[in-house]
Amino acid sequence: MARGRRDIQSLAQGVAAGRRADLAAAITLTESILPEDREAAKDLLSRLWKQPSSCLRIGLSGAAGVGKSTLVDAIGLRILEDGLKLAVLAVDPSSTAGGGSVLADKTRMKRLSLREEAYIRPSPSGNVPGGVARRTREAIFLCEAAGYGAVIVETLGAGQAEASVAEMTDVYVLLVSPAGGDDLQGVKRGVLEHADLVLVTKEDGDLAPAARRTAAAYGGALRLWRRRACDPEDFPAVQTVSALEGGGVAEAWEKIVRLRKWRDEQGHTARQRSAQLRGWVRAEMEDQLLASMRMRENEGLPEAALNEVKEGRIDPLSAAGKILANWKEAAR
Amino acid sequence: MARGRRDIQSLAQGVAAGRRADLAAAITLTESILPEDREAAKDLLSRLWKQPSSCLRIGLSGAAGVGKSTLVDAIGLRILEDGLKLAVLAVDPSSTAGGGSVLADKTRMKRLSLREEAYIRPSPSGNVPGGVARRTREAIFLCEAAGYGAVIVETLGAGQAEASVAEMTDVYVLLVSPAGGDDLQGVKRGVLEHADLVLVTKEDGDLAPAARRTAAAYGGALRLWRRRACDPEDFPAVQTVSALEGGGVAEAWEKIVRLRKWRDEQGHTARQRSAQLRGWVRAEMEDQLLASMRMRENEGLPEAALNEVKEGRIDPLSAAGKILANWKEAAR
Repeated sequence: MARGRRDIQSLAQGVAAGRRADLAAAITLTESILPEDREAAKDLLSRLWKQPSSCLRIGLSGAAGVGKSTLVDAIGLRILEDGLKLAVLAVDPSSTAGGGSVLADKTRMKRLSLREEAYIRPSPSGNVPGGVARRTREAIFLCEAAGYGAVIVETLGAGQAEASVAEMTDVYVLLVSPAGGDDLQGVKRGVLEHADLVLVTKEDGDLAPAARRTAAAYGGALRLWRRRACDPEDFPAVQTVSALEGGGVAEAWEKIVRLRKWRDEQGHTARQRSAQLRGWVRAEMEDQLLASMRMRENEGLPEAALNEVKEGRIDPLSAAGKILANWKEAAR
Repeated sequence: MARGRRDIQSLAQGVAAGRRADLAAAITLTESILPEDREAAKDLLSRLWKQPSSCLRIGLSGAAGVGKSTLVDAIGLRILEDGLKLAVLAVDPSSTAGGGSVLADKTRMKRLSLREEAYIRPSPSGNVPGGVARRTREAIFLCEAAGYGAVIVETLGAGQAEASVAEMTDVYVLLVSPAGGDDLQGVKRGVLEHADLVLVTKEDGDLAPAARRTAAAYGGALRLWRRRACDPEDFPAVQTVSALEGGGVAEAWEKIVRLRKWRDEQGHTARQRSAQLRGWVRAEMEDQLLASMRMRENEGLPEAALNEVKEGRIDPLSAAGKILANWKEAAR
């Protein structure tokens, strides 16, 4: 997908004008592994870059089957009612294992996908170097540049991507199913730690009592071991929702808006955004460093050093140090 | 855990002499994130390095509850019978999410843990930079240097670590539970693709028919889409085991030995080891490059550049490039 600077200029204009096809093409560009595409992505972001952003970024995690798409469909419509454009980005680290994406099928958000003000982006299949974090950061920024006032980043909550998603969003929501007993159903503690709002889904029909029992159990657990400076009095919060019947959806949205507003007023949002940008620069430096190594490596690793390793004459760690030192010397 | 060169020399001697306490200390050293410990680990590996290795490396994956510890306990005893010393290394990438390790509790391998010729190493808790791959490579090598003739690397089979574990072992075994129907129970295709041997566990009592049905389903699936140059006629293989009653355990071990022998004779093992060492050097180069960036970074990222990013005057990608270029210039 090689592009000239001309193309990038018109792509940037299209994104800034909020054209969905251009936004989609821009995100695809940032997911590419080709060096020339990385250069084009850099060009694109530099043309669009602006700060600060007032976009509301929501992280939302839940295991398969918890009713994530149904909830996003319902809360998404509520968000559109407030006059915000909404982007939904799916992040699925496990899709790098070679299987297909299991998340955020457009067809699973039936009502939202029909709306012009909503943009739904499924998880890319295949491995993206730099990982979930880089891809997600760049996609969030592109959505903001395209005028989306709210972005939902969806993950499976399996513990791999959640910490980084929690770090790059303003409010982090965890979805859980009603449990049989009052146990916490194997939700990773590392994921729960990040949750600002736990939504127990499926408060419908005969699951309703179980949903309420589960909500009480989470409420107890969260009160036990969390109290952060960036949490107001009544957060982290737990409530039940019935995406099917619509119960609790407006309340959940109200909580998200209220938390973000409180954090804005207390200066937490500004501090977090600042830390996020620092983290982004840092991660990008690592990416660029590794990319330059890969370029150099394409010319070939020195076979003599590798043979010494295979013959037991030098260990891999020392060999790596020697090759790097030689490259550095040659670059002078 | 700062150590002098003296200490490292005696640690290396202890590992080479097969002393378990020294092996344990050496593996702990390689898991440390401190720069001085990385230097010590490098020193240690360079003192111990020798190739080629004839150690039989077995990757073994299975979800929680599949009966992994019971099977390793049973097959481990069979391995000891052949006069090999056995090391069991647990790898649990999800433990980096902040929770504890769920794998390879010594107490879950009751018989094996009593044997002097067996060394069982639980998964470290907490994040290890360089990830699962580096930690595992170095631990495998240390076990080999300590005279272990067989190493089992255990993983959860969730799709994150499996590809790299499959790449660094000679034979890759996948454990699955008997399923209700003839479905493949959500085993990731990316994991199944690496399997040389699928063992269906719990062929005990009234689960036996389900175990046999599940084995037939896997056999069919594997025949459909795999045939590699490094597979002899009857591999990948599928069989049932009853770790409880001991059924199938000797057969599974026989298959592993036969596969490795065939691959040795065909030259596949030598080719794979060669590729592994190349991969190791490459990964270590990346680690060292990033480590040197982190050292430099500890002196502080340039605040002026970060402020420009926050004020929207330069994008994070361009800022990263500029900082790296400045560092490179300063190093001349």
